[in-house]
Amino acid sequence: MANRPHVVIVGAGFGGLAAARALADAPIDVTVIDRRNHHLFQPLLYQVATAGLSPADIAGSIRSILRDQKNTRVLLDEVCRIDRLQRIVHTRNGRPLQYDWLIIATGAQHSYFGKDEWAPHAPGIKTIDDATAVRRRVLIALERAETELDKSTRDALLTFVVIGGGPTGVEMAGAIAELARQSVSKDFRHITPHCSKVWLLQKGNRLLPSFPEKLSADARRALEHLGVSVRLGGNVEQVTSSGVSVSGEFIPTHTVVWAAGVMASPAAHWLTCKPDRSGRVEVDSMLKAKGSHDIFVIGDTARCIDATGREIPGVAPAAKQQGRYAAQAILAQLHGQTVEPFRYRDYGQMATIGRARAVCSIGGVKLSGHTAWLVWCLAHVWYLNGLRNRISVTISWIWNYLTFERGARLITGELESGGR
Amino acid sequence: MANRPHVVIVGAGFGGLAAARALADAPIDVTVIDRRNHHLFQPLLYQVATAGLSPADIAGSIRSILRDQKNTRVLLDEVCRIDRLQRIVHTRNGRPLQYDWLIIATGAQHSYFGKDEWAPHAPGIKTIDDATAVRRRVLIALERAETELDKSTRDALLTFVVIGGGPTGVEMAGAIAELARQSVSKDFRHITPHCSKVWLLQKGNRLLPSFPEKLSADARRALEHLGVSVRLGGNVEQVTSSGVSVSGEFIPTHTVVWAAGVMASPAAHWLTCKPDRSGRVEVDSMLKAKGSHDIFVIGDTARCIDATGREIPGVAPAAKQQGRYAAQAILAQLHGQTVEPFRYRDYGQMATIGRARAVCSIGGVKLSGHTAWLVWCLAHVWYLNGLRNRISVTISWIWNYLTFERGARLITGELESGGR
Repeated sequence: MANRPHVVIVGAGFGGLAAARALADAPIDVTVIDRRNHHLFQPLLYQVATAGLSPADIAGSIRSILRDQKNTRVLLDEVCRIDRLQRIVHTRNGRPLQYDWLIIATGAQHSYFGKDEWAPHAPGIKTIDDATAVRRRVLIALERAETELDKSTRDALLTFVVIGGGPTGVEMAGAIAELARQSVSKDFRHITPHCSKVWLLQKGNRLLPSFPEKLSADARRALEHLGVSVRLGGNVEQVTSSGVSVSGEFIPTHTVVWAAGVMASPAAHWLTCKPDRSGRVEVDSMLKAKGSHDIFVIGDTARCIDATGREIPGVAPAAKQQGRYAAQAILAQLHGQTVEPFRYRDYGQMATIGRARAVCSIGGVKLSGHTAWLVWCLAHVWYLNGLRNRISVTISWIWNYLTFERGARLITGELESGGR
Repeated sequence: MANRPHVVIVGAGFGGLAAARALADAPIDVTVIDRRNHHLFQPLLYQVATAGLSPADIAGSIRSILRDQKNTRVLLDEVCRIDRLQRIVHTRNGRPLQYDWLIIATGAQHSYFGKDEWAPHAPGIKTIDDATAVRRRVLIALERAETELDKSTRDALLTFVVIGGGPTGVEMAGAIAELARQSVSKDFRHITPHCSKVWLLQKGNRLLPSFPEKLSADARRALEHLGVSVRLGGNVEQVTSSGVSVSGEFIPTHTVVWAAGVMASPAAHWLTCKPDRSGRVEVDSMLKAKGSHDIFVIGDTARCIDATGREIPGVAPAAKQQGRYAAQAILAQLHGQTVEPFRYRDYGQMATIGRARAVCSIGGVKLSGHTAWLVWCLAHVWYLNGLRNRISVTISWIWNYLTFERGARLITGELESGGR
């Protein structure tokens, strides 16, 4: 490590990876720590959960991605403590790491708003293992429904509830509807498209609350067209192994997917600062943890009000911009220059609904339907890491578009955890 | 089910699937039971274990495969008992199934020759979960080696031992050598190709004992060229979490793969007949369990001497031929015709060694090197189920051939089970 300044980046999601890349040619040593060996393209994770893509299609080894960056090393490890005074990161398995600058980009996990007992019945999807677990549940529910004689049990097996009407919930509900109502019905002898029921429960009064209202309405219409029952304004009161209670009504179901809330990773705890309600670390307009000049917190782990006074949303483009900004700020500091406060450039948002529909809001232009879906496909393939994954995802989508088939309908892992 | 005869097929591997397909147009009801929802192309499973392919590339939903076969239904279930007198199959979750003919094709699992305590330290590869577990172990060993300071621990982490010198062991050893010595070394800062050591331990005096001797020698040479240390004639005496003892010598290692022996599934127990030493059911020359006229046992579950007096090997082509034969025998019996005893047509054998070498013995012609590898690739793509998997595997292989990269380097599942 010699005498070059050392930047430690914790987390190789969108933010951490963008920061590492922006430091590629700098006279700096960079260490990237992640507790997984792969960078995950989370926006497509719901397609792994619904058997459309394989995990390897949307993930790449962090080492491979940063292979040619000679100033960077990658550690598979987990942070357990940060000593701000001594500038040391303590990890679970390795030696303590002395840093000159620290970038924390450890993302978020699901949050059940204090109802952690719901977790086993309503898994969320944040990791590959989460996604294959949801895939297992959905596929096993269909298998069991095929042979179940008791009508009420069968109906519950064929009922799928998605909680949360943001982009993940909308995409998940659309994909489950397609899987359960179209893709697989030819394969079963007793399940017909109309047997299955998919619910999307949203607490607020519209889906995709961060999108323009017109697109919320379009998304709802598209979902209903796919056979999803959208329920707005309901309050989820209970989730058990036999169903979901929403505003006094009980929906019997064996398969619930959680897309309702996230809680930041425990960075606030490491930094011994007070987190906000979502567990995030408050950062200043330079993305630095309050009271610190060498610690950046970015992405879903940070609560950030940018120069325009707007709270930065927890989306991939924001995390990437923050990662690049943190890297540039370090380089500027190194050269004794000053930096402008972070300014988030919002290029828009998009969400897809099933096989050939989407809604996009890009720089004031609102699109929905097929055109929006094409834009969505192109954007997602473009931003995927690596040519191989782009080819693989493109082929899967073309195949799925032409045949309605899902190529990755595998039940793996313990059958028991799928409810059998 | 009306009054049509009912054939129950247990197991949707090569044998069971071939039998089901051969009954497609018959005036018969067919039920296929498997405890997994997918048919697995086992000959390529070692490539999942070594991060070259994704599980979904070599597996397909059994329902999808048999979708258009209107007389066939598929059950995700497990056999627990067979009542030969009443002709009933009892399963774990479903109702009892009355059969007119029963085809048992439930394959085999690894066997540790009574040393079951070795199992946690030396996993074999028979299922997708086995393969991803081995992948996890190999990748984690490399990750840990990258940061390990103690030389002897580091050497043990970079030592990989494959036990068993049949086709699976040979293919596994070659693939691990490539992964550990070529594919990933660019990605690590402290691991160079020559740090890693791969052992292939074979009890007998040559590799691939079922192949012509010349090809055994060729395979050994090709493996040694890849950096695999082949040890013949050694007796494995102990496998623990810290290493393998072979004929008095101790090899310190954290990663052992078992490819030495298999034990048939418990069909003999279900049929209350005496299994052979490998747990197989002895069948007559019509593939029927001794003393039975309505139960066929095929594939790795059966010990079968064919009409030429030769014991049928436990390979995919044999299982497929037996599956088709059992189906034809049932149809013949249905029409009051007699059938000739089963005769195995041996088209040859092949095994690949790394990225561009293989050995093939086809109808007396012996090939090795690049030509054999091309034949091997074509044959395996040809026999894969479904166009989509063929495209996907072909692209992965071309990619791997051109770049030396492995596309599926994901550590998934519990890190703890990988030895951390």
